[in-house]
Amino acid sequence: MAAQGTASVPVDLAAIREAHARILPHVRRTPVMSCRALDEAAGATLHFKCENFQEVGAFKARGAANAVFALTAAEAAHGVVTHSSGNHGAALAWAAARRGIPAWVVMPDNAPAVKQANVRGFGGQVRLCAPTVAAREAACAAVQAETGATLVHPYNDWRVIAGQGTAALELLEEIPDLDAVVAPVGGGGLLSGTAIAARGLRPAIRVFGAEPKGADDAQRSLAAGHIIAQDNPRTIADGLRTSLGDKTFAVLSRLVEGIGVASEEAIVAAMRLTWEKMKIVIETSSAVPLACLMERSLDLAGLKVGVILSGGNVDLERLPWQK
Amino acid sequence: MAAQGTASVPVDLAAIREAHARILPHVRRTPVMSCRALDEAAGATLHFKCENFQEVGAFKARGAANAVFALTAAEAAHGVVTHSSGNHGAALAWAAARRGIPAWVVMPDNAPAVKQANVRGFGGQVRLCAPTVAAREAACAAVQAETGATLVHPYNDWRVIAGQGTAALELLEEIPDLDAVVAPVGGGGLLSGTAIAARGLRPAIRVFGAEPKGADDAQRSLAAGHIIAQDNPRTIADGLRTSLGDKTFAVLSRLVEGIGVASEEAIVAAMRLTWEKMKIVIETSSAVPLACLMERSLDLAGLKVGVILSGGNVDLERLPWQK
Repeated sequence: MAAQGTASVPVDLAAIREAHARILPHVRRTPVMSCRALDEAAGATLHFKCENFQEVGAFKARGAANAVFALTAAEAAHGVVTHSSGNHGAALAWAAARRGIPAWVVMPDNAPAVKQANVRGFGGQVRLCAPTVAAREAACAAVQAETGATLVHPYNDWRVIAGQGTAALELLEEIPDLDAVVAPVGGGGLLSGTAIAARGLRPAIRVFGAEPKGADDAQRSLAAGHIIAQDNPRTIADGLRTSLGDKTFAVLSRLVEGIGVASEEAIVAAMRLTWEKMKIVIETSSAVPLACLMERSLDLAGLKVGVILSGGNVDLERLPWQK
Repeated sequence: MAAQGTASVPVDLAAIREAHARILPHVRRTPVMSCRALDEAAGATLHFKCENFQEVGAFKARGAANAVFALTAAEAAHGVVTHSSGNHGAALAWAAARRGIPAWVVMPDNAPAVKQANVRGFGGQVRLCAPTVAAREAACAAVQAETGATLVHPYNDWRVIAGQGTAALELLEEIPDLDAVVAPVGGGGLLSGTAIAARGLRPAIRVFGAEPKGADDAQRSLAAGHIIAQDNPRTIADGLRTSLGDKTFAVLSRLVEGIGVASEEAIVAAMRLTWEKMKIVIETSSAVPLACLMERSLDLAGLKVGVILSGGNVDLERLPWQK
């Protein structure tokens, strides 16, 4: 992809190593797992970095911990704020609690009660707002004005990106000879950190993103050479409905070779296959890389491929393959 | 428990080490996992040996591999036979295929098609019989007479018991200072191997079994000092409906301190909690030790406890907590 973002990229491998040292007392070094049945489905040899076993059940703990523990004492005293109805909000509340500082999480007032309860369970304070971008930004700004809290954006934040890159750092330390690595892409924080870490450690490695067809803004943005916002995303992979930010776009346009897109059917099939054969609980977003490999929108036949399993927070009452 | 079985016990720690060396090229060294939320539910510090990640999705691969690879070449040439509608049948077919010998698995003709297909998928030959003990034994005897195959009983077999003990061997190698270890008990092969390995490595360790209230023959048998067969077992934990054999009774009556019994509600709750918090797929039988700890029929408050998670073969279409 010829076009490149114009933002500078201050995060490099050294910054990810620094983030890793910072968060190591707080996050889990998650295992890397493999499974012959999934290799056969993908036509490649897969090594799964299991961030479903991470604190708060998702890689988001890494970026949130890096952002929170990188604050000066003076900054930290005022707390942190973000907007998120998903794993990032819970992760920021968790990280703030570990540092003993307050966290405010702005959520749309139509967010499920269970997600609000989850943030509160980690000690976060929920601020509800109307379900629009304008209301969300106004609510964040209001919290900042009231409290002096530092905004920790879910993905378009260099500290967050550096933190997310620590998963790939550990993966490559454990399996150094990977030919390629694939991560799901929503806002692009995980894929950006993954690309910086992987290409920093192993310049020849090929880096790919994976997203649902119903929220394929990353593929379209990279093809167009500028950010195309996702409107009306339609996918079961609720963690991947967001659009790229200028920082993540800048990283991806430099370091990522391509983005696979997966059908909804393949996402559900890949999720179910992972539960059935690898015996682990992963959420829909985590299944998107395998879905792309199964449908060959990413064709990495015969290669040794690292896959980031982003998280495992699932409603066990009703599974996507059940009528 | 004062009463002891009368059978001699030829399996000791050395035999389990020998089994381990024999099966190591074939089975997985499964990880040991832990989870704060489950510790809180149990009131103890738990270390889970994850045999749900084992080949064929259950610890049964260990005993089957030991039995199959311990055969002489002349014995092996005639193949192996067993009766099982569950994980042992699949495991024996898998182990026989690895050695390149035939396996016959006798199953009741009311066994679900998916279980028959599973045995065939591993290369085993299914022989259906009427769903009675007499018909099952006749069918096994017929296969032996026809083929000269060696019978590998699902649990009342010293080679199988030695193989099952290798899971606890690995667990204690990884976490040597456990105060206690708990394994589910159906026919008693896993618990027997666990007890021999654990007490052999660490004589002071306390060993407990865990079974459903609706199939509590192990508890009743050990209390009575003789085997009381389970008739009409009523439990969702389908791997634990069988009764002890003379060999497993002899081991358990010597080495096991007690048996916890779990309600059906606790089994389902423990299974769900494990999926939700530890993000792994375990089957109903695997949840019984945690269920006993949650209900305090095993009260190991404050102790460091190893728990064998026996397997992860589940019908994902319908989960026990779903209406």
